[in-house]
Amino acid sequence: MTRRLHLNAFLMGVGHHEAAWRHPRTEPRRVTDVRHFQDLARIAERGKLDSVFLADGLALWGNVRHNALGGLEPLTLLSALAAVTEHVGLIATVSTTYNEPFHVARKFASLDHISGGRAGWNIVTSAGEAEAHNFGIERPPHRLRYERATEFLEVATKLWDSWEDDAVLADRVGGVYAETARIHPVEHVGEHFRVQGPLNTQRPPQGRPLLVQAGSSDDGRDFAARHAEAVFTAQQTLEEGQEFYADLKVRAARYGRRPEEILVLPGISPILGSTEREALRLEKELEDLIIPAYGVAQLSNVLGVDLSGHPLDEPLPEIPERTEGQQSRLKLVVDLARRERLTIRQLVGRLAGGRGHRVVAGTPEQVADQLQEWFENGAADGFNVMPPILPAGLEDFVDHVVPELRARGLFRHEYEGRTLREHYGLARPASRYAAAADAPPQEEPAVAVPS
Amino acid sequence: MTRRLHLNAFLMGVGHHEAAWRHPRTEPRRVTDVRHFQDLARIAERGKLDSVFLADGLALWGNVRHNALGGLEPLTLLSALAAVTEHVGLIATVSTTYNEPFHVARKFASLDHISGGRAGWNIVTSAGEAEAHNFGIERPPHRLRYERATEFLEVATKLWDSWEDDAVLADRVGGVYAETARIHPVEHVGEHFRVQGPLNTQRPPQGRPLLVQAGSSDDGRDFAARHAEAVFTAQQTLEEGQEFYADLKVRAARYGRRPEEILVLPGISPILGSTEREALRLEKELEDLIIPAYGVAQLSNVLGVDLSGHPLDEPLPEIPERTEGQQSRLKLVVDLARRERLTIRQLVGRLAGGRGHRVVAGTPEQVADQLQEWFENGAADGFNVMPPILPAGLEDFVDHVVPELRARGLFRHEYEGRTLREHYGLARPASRYAAAADAPPQEEPAVAVPS
Repeated sequence: MTRRLHLNAFLMGVGHHEAAWRHPRTEPRRVTDVRHFQDLARIAERGKLDSVFLADGLALWGNVRHNALGGLEPLTLLSALAAVTEHVGLIATVSTTYNEPFHVARKFASLDHISGGRAGWNIVTSAGEAEAHNFGIERPPHRLRYERATEFLEVATKLWDSWEDDAVLADRVGGVYAETARIHPVEHVGEHFRVQGPLNTQRPPQGRPLLVQAGSSDDGRDFAARHAEAVFTAQQTLEEGQEFYADLKVRAARYGRRPEEILVLPGISPILGSTEREALRLEKELEDLIIPAYGVAQLSNVLGVDLSGHPLDEPLPEIPERTEGQQSRLKLVVDLARRERLTIRQLVGRLAGGRGHRVVAGTPEQVADQLQEWFENGAADGFNVMPPILPAGLEDFVDHVVPELRARGLFRHEYEGRTLREHYGLARPASRYAAAADAPPQEEPAVAVPS
Repeated sequence: MTRRLHLNAFLMGVGHHEAAWRHPRTEPRRVTDVRHFQDLARIAERGKLDSVFLADGLALWGNVRHNALGGLEPLTLLSALAAVTEHVGLIATVSTTYNEPFHVARKFASLDHISGGRAGWNIVTSAGEAEAHNFGIERPPHRLRYERATEFLEVATKLWDSWEDDAVLADRVGGVYAETARIHPVEHVGEHFRVQGPLNTQRPPQGRPLLVQAGSSDDGRDFAARHAEAVFTAQQTLEEGQEFYADLKVRAARYGRRPEEILVLPGISPILGSTEREALRLEKELEDLIIPAYGVAQLSNVLGVDLSGHPLDEPLPEIPERTEGQQSRLKLVVDLARRERLTIRQLVGRLAGGRGHRVVAGTPEQVADQLQEWFENGAADGFNVMPPILPAGLEDFVDHVVPELRARGLFRHEYEGRTLREHYGLARPASRYAAAADAPPQEEPAVAVPS
């Protein structure tokens, strides 16, 4: 079978460019409008994209004075997108740092049922201090967050497996709804969690949702190599992309996984025009709408250094390394500034487009060239597409780049599968408890009624 | 204005009768089928009902060998119902015992945005031991659960209020998305929670979701009297209904609330037939499908006494009072058995229909008579309708009882409002922070990007 690339549409408010909300082709009040996101999901489905993705954080990010923030909680929103689509996968970020595995496993199982097997979970740890303060604690250290994430996922997986696939008999006449020998308490006792189980939602269509990960730290890569089936990443150059791609596949092999079991999807923000000139004009329009103070504040935060006193048109000063927070993002940003000798203003402009992800301005053919180059040279199995303005940027991508990719034999013409796992060519996992089906039936004790 | 009654459709699996799943007019595999629930929501909307309601628990309830359990998480499901309806309110149970107020406030704010102002929250505390064991702790005592619930609601309310209504300016030209002086950190520091805020979702259309409550204990009634806007309750006789209704309105008055600010909705399971005989036949059919061992186990659990050794056709033995768990439900069940001198088998049969709620078998006129009697005699502001089988029982109610209520001038012909609060005739609450709008603008520090 020809190797085909995979496309995820990363939906963020009215666009990934920081100034998107000021552009005349967006409607900045629509960040809380479900119809806006339903339109986007339909556009992605029209393009036969593998999935859409909603990021998340657990505090009010950035400076809402100068950006269109305060949108909807992703899982709640994805359900409403499931209701108006049939094929496109639905991926949400949910943090393992301030949640309980029982709740999260159940919500993803529910979304997977609701969508007919289209749910995906982008597993993150929450690094922000403001997030910690919404949950009454101090921010846990990096290592501890990843330890918790690992155990969290283990518990969630046990819960998804707790109902075997054929547990439900629905035998009206015999009076047996489910074979209780095929529903298993998980009895997890660990460092961070004690969870009895079973889950109170039947095993979802995909067995487990697609597992996605996006951390780039050493812990993050290791977590991805062990557990993730798709990885979102931010790489600026082909070389960086190749390094990351190779590193992840090697790490995965150490855990006994085959390369095709973990898909690498670098982020790319395509700024499209029917001519290169038109694309560059859009890029310039967006750049001119940037509010420098906002960008400098964002940059200061990523770098952990207050840059507000520095002249905008001079190079980035010396930046100390961080021991906590977004370390890999810091390195990416500093490397970019040094490599291209950018002033603070230029760096702000570069980051405004994709927050450290690659920005490519050009015609559909030029963008397709870039995708093809990475895909065919060991840097990508597909892409996390981050349109600068929404919905226009996604429409342009679907209507002009996708046909170009098809013409080159790189992308599907029609959905061939039904579930998100099928779109990504990934197997449906079996329940870990399936072999135990011969055990004697266990009667669950009857308990009180729901309220 | 004529006083009109309110109707909520309580949606539970394929019906409220314990044996519903064995009845030929249900499809017991549909408990995980979103289309089943979408059909139900559409039927409720066709009847112009105020709302639909999904109960919840955080463990696998009852004995899944003999009942159709393992359905979907309510909030996730309601979003998918919002997408296919326009008017009907959407109420979900979410527990305050094993959740965080930031998550819950945000999810309800999101559902309220997604549904255009139709979200309602049935606030519960989790009394089950199996629930506690899914969250790694021992069950907290009753009083502590209610203390936590009270503070939980306080935090959630602050979070919903944290964005004032007019905080978003979306001024593209001036580059001001939101007026930060109108977005408030909540800085809650209490016994159970420390939450900085603000919420990262804009103020929802209803200001706050409709607040619903269903506890009948003294703590539960007091909580309802202070906070609830609609109350689900289980009362068997008109006298009990009147007592509860009067008690709740008196308690509410003590908190400075007017009687119409808290609506009392007793549960009723209508077993309908076009003749009384047909209704009784359906009741008998369902009764014959009960699995006695299942009913006895359920009853044992409610009573805290193992009845499996007792002869089915003898009266209920002496039952000790409970100090923990569903105390008010125990009293209701014991009172019912004593009052009507029921055997264990008969009691199981009576509880199978509505788990302690009132069951009325009859023609649409007879059921309407019952509703009218309670409504006009100080026992109800409306009803929590619990069809024995779904969807058939809800269709019968909407197609036959609702028109009868309309003919009597007791129920709306069309929706007059757009939001759930409007359906129930309740005011939209102002943000507690609105008066503070003259305070100097506060710049939120820029923080890292969502992941």
